[in-house]
Amino acid sequence: MSNWLKEIKWNEQGLVPAIAQEAGTGINLMVAWMNEEALRETVASGFAVYFSRSRQRLWRKGEESGHQQHVKEVRLDCDADVILLTVEQQGGIACHTGRHSCFYRVYNEGEWQAVDAVLKDPSDIYT
Amino acid sequence: MSNWLKEIKWNEQGLVPAIAQEAGTGINLMVAWMNEEALRETVASGFAVYFSRSRQRLWRKGEESGHQQHVKEVRLDCDADVILLTVEQQGGIACHTGRHSCFYRVYNEGEWQAVDAVLKDPSDIYT
Repeated sequence: MSNWLKEIKWNEQGLVPAIAQEAGTGINLMVAWMNEEALRETVASGFAVYFSRSRQRLWRKGEESGHQQHVKEVRLDCDADVILLTVEQQGGIACHTGRHSCFYRVYNEGEWQAVDAVLKDPSDIYT
Repeated sequence: MSNWLKEIKWNEQGLVPAIAQEAGTGINLMVAWMNEEALRETVASGFAVYFSRSRQRLWRKGEESGHQQHVKEVRLDCDADVILLTVEQQGGIACHTGRHSCFYRVYNEGEWQAVDAVLKDPSDIYT
């Protein structure tokens, strides 16, 4: 493993969380997990690749939806256990619910309220 | 536990990652972990409270450094397993290295390069 990958503190499952933040707007689109292979491919290809914990395999973001994330910058935090991607979001939709961002719920008086619009029906995304 | 707390998918250690994003600039300052008590106190107090995995106790951000985070908004993602805080960073320093943000290293040609300035010597923060 290359030194820059060894510097990362992978957790006991060999994963780190990765934030995808939109270039220009600064909106946080989503958080997913990466293993070493996912991060290596992200850097090599310039497109976000995560590790799907539910499917236990590489998840090339957009492989089904077409909503790829073009990676402009990759950052690492001080503890070396969180990755921050700056991305251009293809199609303007990061969330499987058809919203721009996965963080569409806001806490308000004891409830999580969905405040962001669905831009496209998920059944039209995953056909 | 209140319903809004039950909706969160706490991991096997009873934790979820929480991103602190700066109000106004949109800069991602840090990621830490929260347990149920930390999130409850964050919402109640209006200041970010995390759970320190190394110390295994609540970590009221700024308790030593004075660099508290005033919480303007709390969001939850679609999978209900990541929290996003919008915060005002007291002192302009979130990182224990004395930098504005913990994400001060950028990947460049096989290396992590520190690109953001140290604003204050850590020995002057933790006295």
